[in-house]
Amino acid sequence: MKLIQGGPCAARGFKASGVHCGIRKNHSKKDIALIVSDVPASAAAVYTTNLVKSAPIYVTQKHLADGIAKAVICNSGNANTCNADGVEIAEKTCDILAEQLGIDASDIVVASTGVIGLPLDIKPFEDGIPQLIAALSEDGAEDAVEGIMTTDTVKKMAAVEFELGGKICRMGGMAKGSGMIHPNMATMLVFITTDAAISPAMLQKALSGDVQATFNMLSIDGDTSTNDMVTVLANGLAGNAPIESEGEDLCVFMKALNTLTVQLCRMIVADGEGATKMLECKVSGAADLETARKVAKSVVCSSLLKAAMFGADANWGRVLCAIGYSGADLDVSKIGVSFSSAAGTVEVCRNGAGIEFSEELAKKILTEDEIDINVSLGSGDVCACAWGCDLTYDYVRINGDYRS
Amino acid sequence: MKLIQGGPCAARGFKASGVHCGIRKNHSKKDIALIVSDVPASAAAVYTTNLVKSAPIYVTQKHLADGIAKAVICNSGNANTCNADGVEIAEKTCDILAEQLGIDASDIVVASTGVIGLPLDIKPFEDGIPQLIAALSEDGAEDAVEGIMTTDTVKKMAAVEFELGGKICRMGGMAKGSGMIHPNMATMLVFITTDAAISPAMLQKALSGDVQATFNMLSIDGDTSTNDMVTVLANGLAGNAPIESEGEDLCVFMKALNTLTVQLCRMIVADGEGATKMLECKVSGAADLETARKVAKSVVCSSLLKAAMFGADANWGRVLCAIGYSGADLDVSKIGVSFSSAAGTVEVCRNGAGIEFSEELAKKILTEDEIDINVSLGSGDVCACAWGCDLTYDYVRINGDYRS
Repeated sequence: MKLIQGGPCAARGFKASGVHCGIRKNHSKKDIALIVSDVPASAAAVYTTNLVKSAPIYVTQKHLADGIAKAVICNSGNANTCNADGVEIAEKTCDILAEQLGIDASDIVVASTGVIGLPLDIKPFEDGIPQLIAALSEDGAEDAVEGIMTTDTVKKMAAVEFELGGKICRMGGMAKGSGMIHPNMATMLVFITTDAAISPAMLQKALSGDVQATFNMLSIDGDTSTNDMVTVLANGLAGNAPIESEGEDLCVFMKALNTLTVQLCRMIVADGEGATKMLECKVSGAADLETARKVAKSVVCSSLLKAAMFGADANWGRVLCAIGYSGADLDVSKIGVSFSSAAGTVEVCRNGAGIEFSEELAKKILTEDEIDINVSLGSGDVCACAWGCDLTYDYVRINGDYRS
Repeated sequence: MKLIQGGPCAARGFKASGVHCGIRKNHSKKDIALIVSDVPASAAAVYTTNLVKSAPIYVTQKHLADGIAKAVICNSGNANTCNADGVEIAEKTCDILAEQLGIDASDIVVASTGVIGLPLDIKPFEDGIPQLIAALSEDGAEDAVEGIMTTDTVKKMAAVEFELGGKICRMGGMAKGSGMIHPNMATMLVFITTDAAISPAMLQKALSGDVQATFNMLSIDGDTSTNDMVTVLANGLAGNAPIESEGEDLCVFMKALNTLTVQLCRMIVADGEGATKMLECKVSGAADLETARKVAKSVVCSSLLKAAMFGADANWGRVLCAIGYSGADLDVSKIGVSFSSAAGTVEVCRNGAGIEFSEELAKKILTEDEIDINVSLGSGDVCACAWGCDLTYDYVRINGDYRS
C-alpha cells in the first residue's frame, strides 16, 4: 500500500474533465466537472443528514438504489438547494448527459455546491455537457477538481496503490471544501474512484464504516452542509477476484480507502475558509471509541480554541473546557494535554491541572502550520483523531459577504 | 410589572461593592465584587453542565444545600478552574469573608471568572475583603458589576418592580459575558436579588424553569463555560406572604424573573466578544417547545449565519441550513423566513424555497444593531426565542491572544 500521484483518474478506466459552462459569472473559473468510467462500476455513497438537502442528493439516492453507476457530474457556484424546481433541473442534467454519453440516466451521480436558494437554469448544463464530454481525458482530473471548487484555494486530490490477490489496484479521489464543513453521518463533496472489483454491498459497507473515522471527524465551522456527499465508483478493471464478502481482501480495501480519505480530510481542513493552520486532535487512553471521538471532535470544534491556535496561544484551559462539554463520560482528574508540531512537544496539563511549561517553547510549537493537540484520558486504550483548523479574520471576511 | 433602574441593589436590604484587590495586574480594573443581604435569604442556583467545573462551583453547591444564603463574592481575572488547590482557595475566601461579616461560611455564594488553569493565590482576597466590606453600600451595584467584568465592554444590570398580594416587590440582577458563552442547562455568571418572600424550593423551581427559556437560549460562541452559574437571593423584606407553593403568586414571581432575565440575556449577547449586532431568532408555528427551541438555538449558533449578519448579507440559505441540522423533526417544505429590524421587514423564504426580495431593503434592515430572524415552521402554535450575536474580526482578535 502506498500513496501515489493522481486523483479520480489514478484508477484504470476513469476519465475526467472540467470546464466553464456559465453558472458562474467569472469566465476564468471552471464551474462543472465530469468523471466517467469506461465500464459500469459498483457504486456506494453517503449523504448529509441535514433535513434541508440539495435536490441532486435526492436524484443521486434514487440512481444509486441499484448500486451501479458510470458517471459523476457536479457543478459549483450554485447549490441547487431550496429551489422549487431543483429536482427537475438535476434530473434534466442527467437526461442530457445520459443521452450524449449513450448511457442510462440512472447510472449518473449528480451533485451541486455553491450558494443555497439561488435559482438554477438548465441552459449552462445544455451548453457545458458537450464541452465536458469532448474534453474527457485520463489527464482531466486537475480540470475536474477545478470545476467543483468554491472558496477552496488548493486542488484536493489524492491516490493510493494497493494489492488484492496479486493484482495491483489503484484508488483516487477529489474533494471540495472549504466552508459549511461539519460532516454528520455524511460529509462534504468527495468523489472516489477505484479499479478494484468489489460488490456494491461490500463497497457501501467499506465507505459507511470509513466516514465515521474520517470525514465525520473533521470540522471547519460547525455547519453541516445541505449538499454533503461522498461517492465511490469501483469499476473492477484491476482484475482482482471481486470482493463479495467480509474477509482479508475487504480489510485491505478498507485500509486503502482509509489511507486515501485521511489524506483528503487533511487537505480539506488545511484549506478551511480563512485557515492558516491545520489542527489534529489525537485522543488516547479512552475507555471506548464513542468517548474518544466525542472528545476529539469537541476540541477541534471549539471557536475559542481555534482562535487561540490562530494566535499561537497555548491556552490549554480551552481544551479542557471543550472536553468537559463534549458530552463524553470521563474522569477530569486523569486528563493530560500536550501540544506538538515540527518544532517539538510541550506538555501543559497533567491530571486535569496545569503544570509549569515554557511559554517560549509553546509559542514556537504553535507557530507551525500543523499542530497536534494530544489528549490522554487515562481510562483505557482506545484512540481517535479529529481534524480542524484555526479561526481567523479571513473566515469572517470570506463569510461576511459570500454571495457578492 | 415594570422595568426600573438598578441592579443587584434594587431590592430592599441588599448592599454591594467592587474593588481592585490585585488578581489583575491592571490597577484601574476592579477584580472582585460583593453582594450582602441584611437578613438571611432564600437562595437558588443553577450551574454549568460542563464536566470541567470551576472550584467555586463545588463550594457554592455545598453551601446552598440548605437553600439559604446571605452574601455573594465573585472575582474576575482568574477562573479558579483546573487548579489543584482551587477548592481550598475558594473555601478560604469564604472563611475570611464569613469571619469579617460575622456570618456562617455556608451562607456564602462564591464564584470566579477569567483564565482557566492559572494558579490563584489567597493574598488578593485577604487584601480585598476588608476593602469590599468597608465599601458596601446601597449604591454599590455599579462597582460590583465592574468587579466581575472580563472582556465585557458594558455593565450588565437590570431590575423590575412587581406586586405580590398588594406588596411592592423588586428584583434586580447583574451579569457578566462575554466569551465562552453557550449555556447548557445552566449559564454564565448572573447574580439576582429580590426582596420578595419565597421558599428556597419555590425559588429553585422558578429559576430552573426560567433558565430553559432564557440563558439556555443564548449563545455567543458555542463554548459552554466551566464557570457558569446563576444565583437568586430572595430576602423577603418586601413583606409579601411567602410563596411556598405553586399558584398565582408564583406565576407573578416567575413572570418578573423572566422579564429580568430576558433583559440580561439581551445585554449579554449585545456585548458578545467582538459583536456589532444582536440577533434574536423568533421561531413560531412549531409543533412542540423542544422543536421551537432547537431550531432557534441552532440558527443563532451558526458561524456562517453569524458572519453573514456581520456583513449585513441576507444569506437566508444559511438559516435553512442551520434549521436542517438542528436535530428537530420538521417539514422543510413549510418553512418561512424573514428578517426584520427597526428599518422594516423583508420576507426571503416561503414554503422552504426562496422568493424574490429587494436586496436593497434587506441590506438596510441588516445594517441595524438589532436583527430579528423570524422563522415560521407551519406545524403548530408553539413559539421560542434564542439570542446571539454576529461573528466579527474582533472576536478573532480578542480570542487569538486572550491570556496576554
